[in-house]
Amino acid sequence: MIPSNARLPRTAVIREVGLRDGLQSIATILPTEQKREWIRAAHAAGQREIEVGSFVPARLLPQLADTGELVAYAKTLPDLFVSVLVPNLRGAESAIAAEADLMIVPLSASHTHSLANLRKTPDDVVAEVAKIRAARDAAGSKTLIEGGVGTAFGCTLQGHVEKSEVLRLMQALLDAGADRVSIADTVGYADPGMVRDLFEEALRIAGDRFWCGHFHDTRGLGLANVYAALEVGVNRFDACLAGIGGCPHAPGASGNVSTEDLAYMLGSMGIASGIDIEQLLALRKQVAEWLQGETLHGSLWQAGLPKTFGQSLATA
Amino acid sequence: MIPSNARLPRTAVIREVGLRDGLQSIATILPTEQKREWIRAAHAAGQREIEVGSFVPARLLPQLADTGELVAYAKTLPDLFVSVLVPNLRGAESAIAAEADLMIVPLSASHTHSLANLRKTPDDVVAEVAKIRAARDAAGSKTLIEGGVGTAFGCTLQGHVEKSEVLRLMQALLDAGADRVSIADTVGYADPGMVRDLFEEALRIAGDRFWCGHFHDTRGLGLANVYAALEVGVNRFDACLAGIGGCPHAPGASGNVSTEDLAYMLGSMGIASGIDIEQLLALRKQVAEWLQGETLHGSLWQAGLPKTFGQSLATA
Repeated sequence: MIPSNARLPRTAVIREVGLRDGLQSIATILPTEQKREWIRAAHAAGQREIEVGSFVPARLLPQLADTGELVAYAKTLPDLFVSVLVPNLRGAESAIAAEADLMIVPLSASHTHSLANLRKTPDDVVAEVAKIRAARDAAGSKTLIEGGVGTAFGCTLQGHVEKSEVLRLMQALLDAGADRVSIADTVGYADPGMVRDLFEEALRIAGDRFWCGHFHDTRGLGLANVYAALEVGVNRFDACLAGIGGCPHAPGASGNVSTEDLAYMLGSMGIASGIDIEQLLALRKQVAEWLQGETLHGSLWQAGLPKTFGQSLATA
Repeated sequence: MIPSNARLPRTAVIREVGLRDGLQSIATILPTEQKREWIRAAHAAGQREIEVGSFVPARLLPQLADTGELVAYAKTLPDLFVSVLVPNLRGAESAIAAEADLMIVPLSASHTHSLANLRKTPDDVVAEVAKIRAARDAAGSKTLIEGGVGTAFGCTLQGHVEKSEVLRLMQALLDAGADRVSIADTVGYADPGMVRDLFEEALRIAGDRFWCGHFHDTRGLGLANVYAALEVGVNRFDACLAGIGGCPHAPGASGNVSTEDLAYMLGSMGIASGIDIEQLLALRKQVAEWLQGETLHGSLWQAGLPKTFGQSLATA
């Protein structure tokens, strides 16, 4: 019999978003020196894609005011692909100037959420991406543009979000010049069946330009959703060390899928991520000390790796 | 396009094992009156299979000393299928006398764990099942016998457990007269790829006599593992309200998949379980008050149901 895992990607990338999606959602402001150490240690543990921050006005997100410095530092580390979030053209100009490898422009497929959160319609954001593309090309910059479609499985404000609208906006982002697109369940509404349905269609539209799945573990389905996405061929996922973060509209709820649990799931299934989990757990311990008083998440740190970890391929 | 969920079972059963696997692993001894209330409310919320306890000597598990009373009470509730755990022939005689609908005989596929925990080899347990079958038939009893193969994905003591050994023991249980067989990841070592591999083969061996998947969420993969099992056609799962329980060999680690999170995942995917989740969450709140000081688990109780819950089928 062909092992079931033969259906799955052989490699996968975990993009660390704890320094952006995680830190922007909690009260603690981590000093730049500690963020640099986090980036250094994550890289040393094998992580090769990190979203280091967001180019937003410091008065809005003082937690991320040092994004420029962090891009500069991260770019000194070999083979590290450095991402930042940019909400608009002004942020994109900063990302281009900083020579980030990729800038993520978030779009909310929920019109209600988009208006409440960004004071723009989703199509306004698509238009902004076209301007960002023009500015990027005019600058002769190599910074890739990723359009990230959030609230793709529903919204705490609006409720239902049409799948056809998510796919329309994804196509519009590509047409406007996004080099990559991704899908995010920013509120933890997705289930594995929905993920499979939507991601299959998204891959048909975007092909190789489909970049990333972003799942929150708000209702415990984060890793089940990752597994469903792996089954249809997606192999890049956002995650936050210690599952930090969450959603301002869902207080107390957990944030992104935790990096260490996801790295464990991939490793257990024999999907290479390049991550040394023991090193990652050591970093988690360090970050937990820095973030004392914040609610952290994840399971592996408490239970430890199984005795059998790493044997699955040898004994398959 | 055929919706992906068309590949999945249309209905599924959650067997509540909190009163046995949960309560046996924690210090609090819940009074019989509260257990009766738990059973009553779980039934009222739509649960139709409950493992109410274990026929073991009270000196070993004082938490479960009232199992006989609970079987008698549970059998007064309409359409409730009442299970108990029995470690040996003596326990089985009690289950037969109590007229339980089903008795689960646990077997550990790990020889080391079997000897440490039961002071028997796995094949000794198979021989015990043959005796139990003979006693059941001699008594003219209708109590079904389930052989449950635990440590099926590895063991905290022994490490690796051969898949071929798990399947051999499952076949041996059927040959010895078990009416049903099930597979348990009692230590949280499974990943979705392993589940798919093993359960596909188990279903080929046991067919309709394959009864149940039992997953612990020790490393966060519990629901991902359930999803993998659903994909190969398994549609009955053990779960504990509030994810109580765990493993004496993994202190602090979470226990079984939590009933409420599993009910949410099934409901979100349009797989009918007959459970009213709001009623289940009310019961969880009650049980949490009874178990003050114990570590509870699960996510849904904190985040609540999505606004869109129950709409997925209508809008598919």
